[in-house]
Amino acid sequence: MEGVDHLAHERNKAGFDVEHMKIVWAGSRHAFDLSDRISRLVASDPVFRKDDRTMLGRKELFKNTLRKAAHAWKRINDLRLTEEEGYKLRFFVDQPAFTDLHWGMFVPAIKGSGTDEQQQKWLPLAYKMQIIGCYAQTELGHGSNVQGLETTATFDPATNEFVIHSPTLTSSKWWPGGLGKISTHAVVYARLITNGQEHGVHGFIVQLRSLDDHSPLPGVTVGDIGMKFGSGAYNSMDNGVLRFDNVRIPRNQMLMRFSQVTREGKFVHSSVPRQLVYGTMVYVRKTIVSDASTALSRAVCIATRYSAVRRQFGSQNGGIETQVIDYKTQQARLFPLLASAYAFRFVGEWLNWLYTDVTQRLQANDYSTLAEAHACTAGLKSLTTSVTADGIEECRKLCGGHGYLNSSGLPELFAVYVPACTYEGDNYVLLLQVARHLMKTVSQLGSGNKPSGTTAYLGQVKQLLQYRSDVQKAEDWLEPNAVLKAFEARAAWLSVACAENLSKFTNPEEGFQALSADLAEVAVAHCQLIVVSKFLEKLQQDIPGKGVKQQLQVLCGVYALFLLHKHLGDFLSAGCITPKQGSLANEQLRSLYSQVRPNAIALVDAFNYTDHYLGSVLGRYDGNVYPKLYEEAWKDPLNESIVPDGFHEYVQPILKQQLRNARL
Amino acid sequence: MEGVDHLAHERNKAGFDVEHMKIVWAGSRHAFDLSDRISRLVASDPVFRKDDRTMLGRKELFKNTLRKAAHAWKRINDLRLTEEEGYKLRFFVDQPAFTDLHWGMFVPAIKGSGTDEQQQKWLPLAYKMQIIGCYAQTELGHGSNVQGLETTATFDPATNEFVIHSPTLTSSKWWPGGLGKISTHAVVYARLITNGQEHGVHGFIVQLRSLDDHSPLPGVTVGDIGMKFGSGAYNSMDNGVLRFDNVRIPRNQMLMRFSQVTREGKFVHSSVPRQLVYGTMVYVRKTIVSDASTALSRAVCIATRYSAVRRQFGSQNGGIETQVIDYKTQQARLFPLLASAYAFRFVGEWLNWLYTDVTQRLQANDYSTLAEAHACTAGLKSLTTSVTADGIEECRKLCGGHGYLNSSGLPELFAVYVPACTYEGDNYVLLLQVARHLMKTVSQLGSGNKPSGTTAYLGQVKQLLQYRSDVQKAEDWLEPNAVLKAFEARAAWLSVACAENLSKFTNPEEGFQALSADLAEVAVAHCQLIVVSKFLEKLQQDIPGKGVKQQLQVLCGVYALFLLHKHLGDFLSAGCITPKQGSLANEQLRSLYSQVRPNAIALVDAFNYTDHYLGSVLGRYDGNVYPKLYEEAWKDPLNESIVPDGFHEYVQPILKQQLRNARL
Repeated sequence: MEGVDHLAHERNKAGFDVEHMKIVWAGSRHAFDLSDRISRLVASDPVFRKDDRTMLGRKELFKNTLRKAAHAWKRINDLRLTEEEGYKLRFFVDQPAFTDLHWGMFVPAIKGSGTDEQQQKWLPLAYKMQIIGCYAQTELGHGSNVQGLETTATFDPATNEFVIHSPTLTSSKWWPGGLGKISTHAVVYARLITNGQEHGVHGFIVQLRSLDDHSPLPGVTVGDIGMKFGSGAYNSMDNGVLRFDNVRIPRNQMLMRFSQVTREGKFVHSSVPRQLVYGTMVYVRKTIVSDASTALSRAVCIATRYSAVRRQFGSQNGGIETQVIDYKTQQARLFPLLASAYAFRFVGEWLNWLYTDVTQRLQANDYSTLAEAHACTAGLKSLTTSVTADGIEECRKLCGGHGYLNSSGLPELFAVYVPACTYEGDNYVLLLQVARHLMKTVSQLGSGNKPSGTTAYLGQVKQLLQYRSDVQKAEDWLEPNAVLKAFEARAAWLSVACAENLSKFTNPEEGFQALSADLAEVAVAHCQLIVVSKFLEKLQQDIPGKGVKQQLQVLCGVYALFLLHKHLGDFLSAGCITPKQGSLANEQLRSLYSQVRPNAIALVDAFNYTDHYLGSVLGRYDGNVYPKLYEEAWKDPLNESIVPDGFHEYVQPILKQQLRNARL
Repeated sequence: MEGVDHLAHERNKAGFDVEHMKIVWAGSRHAFDLSDRISRLVASDPVFRKDDRTMLGRKELFKNTLRKAAHAWKRINDLRLTEEEGYKLRFFVDQPAFTDLHWGMFVPAIKGSGTDEQQQKWLPLAYKMQIIGCYAQTELGHGSNVQGLETTATFDPATNEFVIHSPTLTSSKWWPGGLGKISTHAVVYARLITNGQEHGVHGFIVQLRSLDDHSPLPGVTVGDIGMKFGSGAYNSMDNGVLRFDNVRIPRNQMLMRFSQVTREGKFVHSSVPRQLVYGTMVYVRKTIVSDASTALSRAVCIATRYSAVRRQFGSQNGGIETQVIDYKTQQARLFPLLASAYAFRFVGEWLNWLYTDVTQRLQANDYSTLAEAHACTAGLKSLTTSVTADGIEECRKLCGGHGYLNSSGLPELFAVYVPACTYEGDNYVLLLQVARHLMKTVSQLGSGNKPSGTTAYLGQVKQLLQYRSDVQKAEDWLEPNAVLKAFEARAAWLSVACAENLSKFTNPEEGFQALSADLAEVAVAHCQLIVVSKFLEKLQQDIPGKGVKQQLQVLCGVYALFLLHKHLGDFLSAGCITPKQGSLANEQLRSLYSQVRPNAIALVDAFNYTDHYLGSVLGRYDGNVYPKLYEEAWKDPLNESIVPDGFHEYVQPILKQQLRNARL
């Protein structure tokens, strides 16, 4: 059977040019070529094999990760890969490692918050990995509330040093990746104290371990915080705990781009505007949105392919059974996730533009769009990661029992993904930030402050509150404007209704707390509108390739109408659509599912994932699932012997009644 | 700090008698005493420790499970525990093991489908565990569709034997727990063939392994199917693969209670009615519903206690921060799950009654209530397991970052629970069974067939379609009838609307397929109505204890109004409530959350779980979370050495630039 494509008949059905769709998915020809080349490079290298990963104990897994990280570094150097290529290579190695934090947090923290002098000193060391760093912010007792961090950095003018100290158990640094066993240095966030005065939380470069023998420096207690969700998954990462007992560092290791402590211990702000920090947050969160579309598309790819392979019920007289993907319940669960993967891809693309735009403005000291851009990336981070986490698990369930096997790849994909809902801003905390921005925008509508960017629709709030959809038949819901206006009207109505409820409280902050569950829903509606509108905008572009744009239109319809059905109560309460129109939308949705069906395999092929990257027997490109599942089973450690360890000690005596006899 | 109760101030707030609530939760004084006694027995036994479980490799974990199973068996015998006590002991050991299938599936299969003679021969062996058995039904290619199983059992009249055979790769038995490494015997389901004719799927007792040396018998290929979701979780179970190469068993090892094959190879039905099989399905599924309330309540207990321990934001001038449980978004996510745990408990109690009722009727050859009871348990299995699986993960997220640590107990609880959505009937397949029953009921309304049991409300379908709620202020939603009628009207409207859409198809089966996504929603609405109505019925009972009934009323309100808000679109489309009334329900819901808040800790204390059973540092009874989290971390295998395995080989060369030099 080797070499046979069991899904060829599915691929032949596709009514669009999948090669063009691959470019659309990747974002550009360049991005496609890069990913294609590097992913194959990684897939063909035996050091990067992943299939045994979930069977390794913690120590073996960790050692395996160190090996992969070293090999990746060697390949990057040997092949003289560019920074972009190196990043892609680590991405396709697809195993969380200390290097993620070194390159993704430690280096950027120094670049973002270090002075030119500090950058000149530390960055070359970091770039060559002569030091390895992590980002030590979160504490045992403090996650979301950064201003509540307890670690202190007290300036000692006598020695020109900062004393870094963990005054309580809850001030222990907790979670930083790479910290537990590997990092030699950390950017440590601590409350700055000079002359007995507190000056908020700042970053400090602290050496943790000896560069000679890797032992922790005096005053430093450091270790791994223990195992996490899943086998494999983030257990390849040494998330760590760190305590300081009055550890001294030179004054020039405070990151001083935004504020400084002088030789005399005076705290001064620099002329560099602090708003630049928000630019970094926009950057990190837009990356998370694009990772969301990647993670969701992987799960969807696995579930879609296996749904076409798997057959169940529906045979007549012993004939062949029905492909699971032909069941409408399967389609109604799977296709909205497929559409969401595409939708998140395009909104991520738009966030790239937004980030560039914001950065350019910041450089020109224009902060006018920053608040809106910040709220919008926060909201999209929350929306896309929540949907993706749930969506991966839904894809696992869509694979039936076999999705529960590690060889399906889905358990590990879920376990490794879910932290995205919590890190870089808890998703509910972020929704409330968005809601706060929306309430502020609504409250300023009267004052002539014209809302801009993604909140521009609130400028037409009066018209939107009176908007009544003119949809009369199911097909009318294919009209982009019918969808857009309904989503705008719903979001506007929810915002206004909440603002009215808020106005009943004499203490606005109390009102905000009391209504926060409703406010979170307002934020979700706003973010869904953004995703829908960016998908529609994408469709305004010139998209080459036979049938490609048509397929994207179908997916956009699925995304929007699925949400409309799911949140029907909002739309009906807003009065922008009638129950009859809601029912027509649902009817149109069913018809769109039928249009996705013949294209489903090609739509996931367009992600262009190698079997190595997918890491799933169920999601194999060639659909040759069952022989490979069978083959994988025998690799389990338990199958190394016929009679398992412990049998003679614990089971044999029961069977032979010797356990009973021992008592009698 | 040892011995200090950090949650004492929370416990003092409770406005009801928690000791009485414990009895309500347990179902009876007897059930409470039993669980209380056995759970403490298990908790105090060092062999049953669980805290190291997720750190063990597959083989160590499996050996550890064999040890626990042997120890459990020894304790059961030494203490001369009753069957009920023995079951509870295995339950509180809380680690999936081959014994679960031996006692839970193998023994019942022989009891249910074996003749008296067969029972006399096999049950004593099984009861003494002189043989250990499993239940081999599911195949690599066939899960839900039992009639599609491919394994054959061909009668050979020449030798008076059945030949058990796996004709294809996909016919390999796949998934049966206990099969992989331990079971000596299995009840194997196979297509019966006699005289060249097929007679459907039947069960056969097949010996798999030698009772001397445990090696597989000739013609038997057997092994473990590999690792599954999570570390720990179901990896303690040897789910297995099994292939037969023409294995012969005596004719009298076909389970012949319902049908027989005579010495001559003639297939005959016995006089025992086959409907009894449905009684077994009702039994298994009602057990799953009660397990759902247990699993959900564990997660809720952990999340609730930790939400009271954890503080974040809201401090003023460096003062103490706000308890996370005081945030309304936290309450709006957590309290509906708390209410659901109670709701599922009570509907489970009612299912116990239903099962007894059905069994008694079956014994009197009364099959009139069977179809309805079957549909209703199928639906409740689906509803409660889906909500519980999602609910556990939501509780994990409600614990912030620390919920991702295995020491929180939540990752393993999730990983071990999720198969419940798939086994014993995939949840979507079951919903469609319920929907089929509802559509049939609706279609027969005109014919004088009065709907009974949980579908009785459909008898008033005309009134329900015209029902308009008379709620005028938020408190009106506290009226049990206001809630019940709205849920009935919604469910009735959805059923009728779907039935009407179905009637537009000329081929009813085609219509059922086309509309199956909508039909699944109809089934969910029906099942939610059952849960709400059984909760309301519970409140009609005499419930002693200060404030206990009042708290349950609050929880019932939370459960119902949360669902009303979530599915508002249904209620509005049905026309049974107005948008204004929907908004009042939401307002009342917020007020109910405030009433739950002071009682939250006592409401989870009422589950009476030991710290051993909870297995969560975050959910500790005494709330002493942070010192214990810190302590747990150091137990990780990675912390056995300062410098981790692989460091000198893979990291040192990078730091020392030797990796680079090797290239240059």
